[in-house]
Amino acid sequence: MVEKIGVIGGGSWGTALAILLSKKGYEVELWVRNSKQCNDMNISRENVKYLSGVVIPNNVRIIDDLEKAVTDKDIIVLSIPSHGVRETLLNSKNYIKPDQIIVNVAKGIENNSLMRISEVVKEIIPKSKYAILSGPSHAEEVARDMPTTVVTASEDKKIANYTQDIFMSPKFRVYTNPDVIGVELGGSLKNVIALGAGISDGLGYGDNTKAALMTRGIIEMSRLGSKMGANNETFAGLSGIGDLIVTCTSMHSRNRRAGILIGEGNSLEEATKSVGMVVEGVKTAKSAYNLAIKYNVTMPITKEIYGVLYEGKDVKNSVVNLMLRDKKHEMEDVVKILNNSW
Amino acid sequence: MVEKIGVIGGGSWGTALAILLSKKGYEVELWVRNSKQCNDMNISRENVKYLSGVVIPNNVRIIDDLEKAVTDKDIIVLSIPSHGVRETLLNSKNYIKPDQIIVNVAKGIENNSLMRISEVVKEIIPKSKYAILSGPSHAEEVARDMPTTVVTASEDKKIANYTQDIFMSPKFRVYTNPDVIGVELGGSLKNVIALGAGISDGLGYGDNTKAALMTRGIIEMSRLGSKMGANNETFAGLSGIGDLIVTCTSMHSRNRRAGILIGEGNSLEEATKSVGMVVEGVKTAKSAYNLAIKYNVTMPITKEIYGVLYEGKDVKNSVVNLMLRDKKHEMEDVVKILNNSW
Repeated sequence: MVEKIGVIGGGSWGTALAILLSKKGYEVELWVRNSKQCNDMNISRENVKYLSGVVIPNNVRIIDDLEKAVTDKDIIVLSIPSHGVRETLLNSKNYIKPDQIIVNVAKGIENNSLMRISEVVKEIIPKSKYAILSGPSHAEEVARDMPTTVVTASEDKKIANYTQDIFMSPKFRVYTNPDVIGVELGGSLKNVIALGAGISDGLGYGDNTKAALMTRGIIEMSRLGSKMGANNETFAGLSGIGDLIVTCTSMHSRNRRAGILIGEGNSLEEATKSVGMVVEGVKTAKSAYNLAIKYNVTMPITKEIYGVLYEGKDVKNSVVNLMLRDKKHEMEDVVKILNNSW
Repeated sequence: MVEKIGVIGGGSWGTALAILLSKKGYEVELWVRNSKQCNDMNISRENVKYLSGVVIPNNVRIIDDLEKAVTDKDIIVLSIPSHGVRETLLNSKNYIKPDQIIVNVAKGIENNSLMRISEVVKEIIPKSKYAILSGPSHAEEVARDMPTTVVTASEDKKIANYTQDIFMSPKFRVYTNPDVIGVELGGSLKNVIALGAGISDGLGYGDNTKAALMTRGIIEMSRLGSKMGANNETFAGLSGIGDLIVTCTSMHSRNRRAGILIGEGNSLEEATKSVGMVVEGVKTAKSAYNLAIKYNVTMPITKEIYGVLYEGKDVKNSVVNLMLRDKKHEMEDVVKILNNSW
């Protein structure tokens, strides 16, 4: 029997995944919220706004009826901006049954509740079968068959293995990982660091500076993750440093592009408007800043980005500030352990 | 009293460090092996061949006399290609005294002995005071005052702290780390992965592919390091993932540029000739390949690169091969630990 899959969200990533899954022979319906966009996509068989130049195969059904998109599906792929997940789930929960698998590909943390997507899903659909799919995977490249690797995590190993089988293709390699918290945090928090990397680029700093920011970035991400119950190893993997690397260095990254514009002197509003798609890192910066306070974790880069975005902090001083803090050991913890012998 | 520093090696990095140190007010002599290049540099006050466009201040003395360059110096900075370290030390060891500090900035592992630079130094000058300085620091950017961070490691904490003080400047931030093995291996092994990253770029693959290679790369580097006595945390720091990132993504990286040329179909010989400077990763690939055998560590990317460089393996299949290996868990070790509960 052929699996039925509903992809919820017609952004670049939802569209790319719908194409990938349809090429594997599954029955795919792609839900596009905006009726006009849905109609346009049905006529042109292309997502001109978010993934231009890529043909959407005819066996992807593009619809704007949310009830229809989730009903009777084996798998529901959540591919909407993180701040829209709650509303979309509330609108569709009556049609979702406990045996349907929800694969979330959104990356973010709710601003007010500070909840990860898995927690939002669990609150609204308590008995749902949940997996997250994350990793260095720009939609523009997946849609063009560039070799890509991602991770799927679920508390239930069977669900992780099943999700792996569903998405795996010769050019789209899926690994499993039991650490839902770590995979969710990695994908979310890296967008904040990517804003910083963009700011560094926009200010005219070099590759040395950006590499330093990224290295410090993954360390503070991992520090918070550790306190929140994630496995440190996850941050060293594809959904951690892997995704951070691609988001901080690729021009496909909206977060980086927004950062560049801010570094060049544009306001937050001008920058996000110019990027034209949701810049997850802007909202996530707020959540990450508050999580750092809640869990009493030092996150200097996140704090600087938050200051630039929300407290009018001068962007020119922000990156340099980070570089000029008191000299110290690279690995405080290591040095502590070795203190007697070194 | 002002410190006297001899910088041994007039490549891009030696020149940039000589400039940085002279700006801090130290007495700096820069040893350039090639007499004609030395002469040219004295006339033009520029290293046209390796660091063009950057003025060398008049208080950097540029000389071609090795004995003079090391004699009576407080610090000797070794900034020569790794395969030249042994010969240069043998030629100068009679003039080096045990209280002089040797700061190595070369990145490599000897091909025949499989020795790290600290081991070579120790063999030739047994009582030397040794530190390594490493991290994401392209010379072209350091010379232009781009904010840069590096790590210095020494078995002797006092030497590490002293080296930190000597090199630290407002735009050049130095951390200390006790892990000499880890810092040396990080700086060396990443050049092999950078060749792979370049090959991926040269073959026309995308940012997703490269990020995956880099993530897998740091994992196999860390795996070997662990067996050789390094601290895993070091690979998560500036001299590990930080340096890997900058080397795999910057056009300043010769290793990456050589990889791109190979990926585009050029021979190894054509590629290295075109880059025009020493491509450390080419030699290090051989050492890393043999270290993996010696320590019985799985290093799939290093093995593929070695195959392409030395066994005539088809470059087109190499990267893709890595992506298509049997599906498995992302973190075998983590999964092993959690096996009962997941």
